[in-house]
Amino acid sequence: MYLENIKSPKDLKKLKVADLHAVADEVRRAVINRVSKHGGHVGPNLGFVEATVALHYVFDAPTDKIVFDVSHQSYPHKILTGRVEGFLSDDKMQGISGYSSPRESPDYDMFEIGHTSTSIALATGLQKGRDILGGRENVVAVIGDGSLTGGQAFEGLNIGAEIGTNLIVVVNDNEMSIAENHGSIVQNLAHLRATAGQTDNNYFRTLGFDYVYLEEGNNVERLVEVFSKVKDIDHPIVVHIHTEKGHGFAPAVENKERWHYNGPFDPADGRPLMKFDGEDIESMLGEYLSERIKTDKKLVVISAATPGGFGFTSERRIAAGKQYIDVAIAEEEAVALASGITRRGARAVFTDYATFFQRTYDQMAQDLAVNGNPAVLNVIGATISGMNDFTHICFFDIAMISHIPNLHYLAPTSYEELIAMENWAIEQTDYSIAIRVPEGPVVHDPTPQDTDYSRIDTFKMLSRGADVTIIGVGNFLPKAKRVAQLLGQKGINATVINPRWVSGIDADMMNDLKKDHRLVVTIEDGVLDGGFGERVARFFGPTKMRTLCFGVKKMLYDRYNVDELMAENHLGDNQIAEDILATLAE
Amino acid sequence: MYLENIKSPKDLKKLKVADLHAVADEVRRAVINRVSKHGGHVGPNLGFVEATVALHYVFDAPTDKIVFDVSHQSYPHKILTGRVEGFLSDDKMQGISGYSSPRESPDYDMFEIGHTSTSIALATGLQKGRDILGGRENVVAVIGDGSLTGGQAFEGLNIGAEIGTNLIVVVNDNEMSIAENHGSIVQNLAHLRATAGQTDNNYFRTLGFDYVYLEEGNNVERLVEVFSKVKDIDHPIVVHIHTEKGHGFAPAVENKERWHYNGPFDPADGRPLMKFDGEDIESMLGEYLSERIKTDKKLVVISAATPGGFGFTSERRIAAGKQYIDVAIAEEEAVALASGITRRGARAVFTDYATFFQRTYDQMAQDLAVNGNPAVLNVIGATISGMNDFTHICFFDIAMISHIPNLHYLAPTSYEELIAMENWAIEQTDYSIAIRVPEGPVVHDPTPQDTDYSRIDTFKMLSRGADVTIIGVGNFLPKAKRVAQLLGQKGINATVINPRWVSGIDADMMNDLKKDHRLVVTIEDGVLDGGFGERVARFFGPTKMRTLCFGVKKMLYDRYNVDELMAENHLGDNQIAEDILATLAE
Repeated sequence: MYLENIKSPKDLKKLKVADLHAVADEVRRAVINRVSKHGGHVGPNLGFVEATVALHYVFDAPTDKIVFDVSHQSYPHKILTGRVEGFLSDDKMQGISGYSSPRESPDYDMFEIGHTSTSIALATGLQKGRDILGGRENVVAVIGDGSLTGGQAFEGLNIGAEIGTNLIVVVNDNEMSIAENHGSIVQNLAHLRATAGQTDNNYFRTLGFDYVYLEEGNNVERLVEVFSKVKDIDHPIVVHIHTEKGHGFAPAVENKERWHYNGPFDPADGRPLMKFDGEDIESMLGEYLSERIKTDKKLVVISAATPGGFGFTSERRIAAGKQYIDVAIAEEEAVALASGITRRGARAVFTDYATFFQRTYDQMAQDLAVNGNPAVLNVIGATISGMNDFTHICFFDIAMISHIPNLHYLAPTSYEELIAMENWAIEQTDYSIAIRVPEGPVVHDPTPQDTDYSRIDTFKMLSRGADVTIIGVGNFLPKAKRVAQLLGQKGINATVINPRWVSGIDADMMNDLKKDHRLVVTIEDGVLDGGFGERVARFFGPTKMRTLCFGVKKMLYDRYNVDELMAENHLGDNQIAEDILATLAE
Repeated sequence: MYLENIKSPKDLKKLKVADLHAVADEVRRAVINRVSKHGGHVGPNLGFVEATVALHYVFDAPTDKIVFDVSHQSYPHKILTGRVEGFLSDDKMQGISGYSSPRESPDYDMFEIGHTSTSIALATGLQKGRDILGGRENVVAVIGDGSLTGGQAFEGLNIGAEIGTNLIVVVNDNEMSIAENHGSIVQNLAHLRATAGQTDNNYFRTLGFDYVYLEEGNNVERLVEVFSKVKDIDHPIVVHIHTEKGHGFAPAVENKERWHYNGPFDPADGRPLMKFDGEDIESMLGEYLSERIKTDKKLVVISAATPGGFGFTSERRIAAGKQYIDVAIAEEEAVALASGITRRGARAVFTDYATFFQRTYDQMAQDLAVNGNPAVLNVIGATISGMNDFTHICFFDIAMISHIPNLHYLAPTSYEELIAMENWAIEQTDYSIAIRVPEGPVVHDPTPQDTDYSRIDTFKMLSRGADVTIIGVGNFLPKAKRVAQLLGQKGINATVINPRWVSGIDADMMNDLKKDHRLVVTIEDGVLDGGFGERVARFFGPTKMRTLCFGVKKMLYDRYNVDELMAENHLGDNQIAEDILATLAE
């Protein structure tokens, strides 16, 4: 067992090159041990085992700086930099994040990274910082072929080359994005592979990078050779290595998309250990879109490398034909494309996780909303019960999207309301619309749904009482109803409202409350700062009406416990009811 | 005079090619007539006169679709598509926007565009929309070399090529961005020019585009030839034309940076007609940074193609040497670079207009703030008294920036406070900091400034009264003081607070107000929705304290009159005082 003696890359360097195969095997087994028990990114890490062993064998971290793009392929790096216990000991796994993290390893991990296409740009900062401080270390940026499609990766190449000093970009080319890869750069990479890097038609060289190609990207000895050659180079160079996603674990090699990220599984055959057999809103949304395009031939479904996130399986993608387009990891393009498609008179729906919409703020504001083009943006994952890594928090979406002028943000509260809103949003041609897809256990609402939402910012009153109004936003409408029931037990007949729109306020309905209410409560599945509730609080600020906003505090979140977070933020049904009663009693 | 007979491109097409020289001359004179009287973009339009004449001579707009990047080079296009009066008649000039605008010309202008690097991505939408609807028109995207540095342009190329159908990208290469151009792609363009497009080392070809080069980019006959060849092409092609920025107007050719955008001038010699001799905060900021780097050798000043916006003149840029870096139009790179530089232990300040920070929301959130790296972002132009075109509104910044967790946003109220905050922000190593540079007439504060702002979210009480508190944010602190004086005349001794931080709340100070105040007023030079005031309104929502927020309504704004906007939003000093009194009386 080599790993037990590798406390840091220094220990790795004591070994002979011939030993590195065995080290790589141990690293691979450690990765599989963790992901099979704990879940995590499988394929990206397995394909980059040998390259990581070689990087740490050749380069001198922490003096030399290695930046991992997305950083979901940094597990082998963690194993070799003092964190092997997080891969071998069941009780240490939770303590290790799935991404690079300076908080976890200030010396070896350069950045908290979870979004794609950033490593080169961040590395140019290390490059420029080194130069200005007179340092001499190597700066290495690792990036996958799937991440090269993001504009920020291009921007980084463009400036890194101009800075002109040592910058080593390792392109980990496994011929995949999360699903199949898209964009013409994929063709150039294929051409480079086919010519063993010998062609003059070389994307990286046009951007001023020196370039070297290695076909055997899972051969640790060859990797050591090529990295040794570029170490301490005095100018920017791309080291393009051809790897196999999922290398060394047959199921992950056979089905690369499914094995990008996995829950716990049996390491013998890859069989999942947990089975989810409930309804799942994303799949239902994918099914809806898949059905709709069959009759709506003007409709184009757009994804940005995460079609699986909304149930647009490979079967559905194939069936959709020209009515589906994946723009690869290029969210800016996705929104501009949607705007252009609708400007031309066709229809477009772009669906992605809330956290990745952050990458397209300007496109939502400028390319879409200023133009008022009637594209539909489906925002998925927007809940505190969703992805909970530092870099993948999805519940800051209302603060981000709802203040963009002329972009109207709907928050359906049930599957049926979601579909009604999708139908309306896709068919109308007057507004740029975003829809916050409801999350958590699927809520069904058997009552008839409205079909026309063209009266923007019109809230829906579900029951009228007196004294207290509870506005339940999106996912939290059921919670609002439960709180109203609790208040009912105390003799308070609360009004309950589904606002539907989170980007505006229904002034008429709000004003009408003044006559017999004294408290308006908002409950939202998101952050308080910049959220829906604050707009309500401002509206009633000058009046006698009191307001009480429930949501979570603005701060960085990482791998939190949802129940604890709910309790800390007084989001339990009873907590809310108690706070309401306390406020009324003041 | 040809122009009086050209009501649409149809009329242009009746002419012989030999006549087009004269048409181009008239278009150029019309452009100069407008910009010399009204101000506007000079160099970009003058360099693209011949190409525009040729585009409309060859292509069949409005059936064929032409998308202009940034669209500040669309003046000749406007002249040829029915809007010549906006260039010849003094009283019609105000009615024509400086950018392409479907609201102005639904047929000929495809999009409202003011930010860069978007034309290709938007055009891919027209391309895909056309394909899905079975159209057969040409889709033409015009983009300058300076705009190719933005990641979105790359993303558009990458997907446009994959779509694979007719898409004609005209690269208007004038060897300039707003100032000098940066990034390695500039070298590739130079190489293409030097080889007359014959080299295999061709950025566009690596991305799957066909390619043709024209050296004589200001020769209308050659342009007609080349456009005629590519018209109705069945695949994506780049037409790379070499133009001269400012062509045909000597002053604009001689000093290309200064003549990118100009106020009114004497068309005979270019002498400015208006002289601004007051203080100007941007120049003062540029001077400060320029001085600071002389003694702070770890500090890097970063710009993204707009160094002139903060007084970083070419002299200062040269003097700064390695301590200055322009990343070209690539704001994502700028923020990631700043984060990386500070991670390495050096210091970094990136300065740009608020509207362009929209392009870097994810980089602020992820690359910078999640990491907590101590870079400084200077946000300029953030005022309702600033740029007022649709696409250049800068006063949505608080809603955008202040809710990003772990990014702390300061709003200084005077030059002296700005400098104190800059000094602190640059020297400290604990926080990611954004600074809202105060705008409008420069305010001086002779009192001693605090030097330590490390107690984040600590407001500053300037005077303590009772009953009413007025919180004056940034630029509007003087207004808050004036309103307090007006209230004083009515016997109300108002408390006045400079919050300094707009990304959090000083709970202790706010709680202390409860004992002897009944109204807290916020006044901010920005939009109400998601603004500073709403956080205050939420804070006091459950209490007896009333709140009243002043700012402007969320909506699209375009070429508004500032005084009217202020009045409509009750932002006049007397209006605010009256509203406060009315609220107290309720």
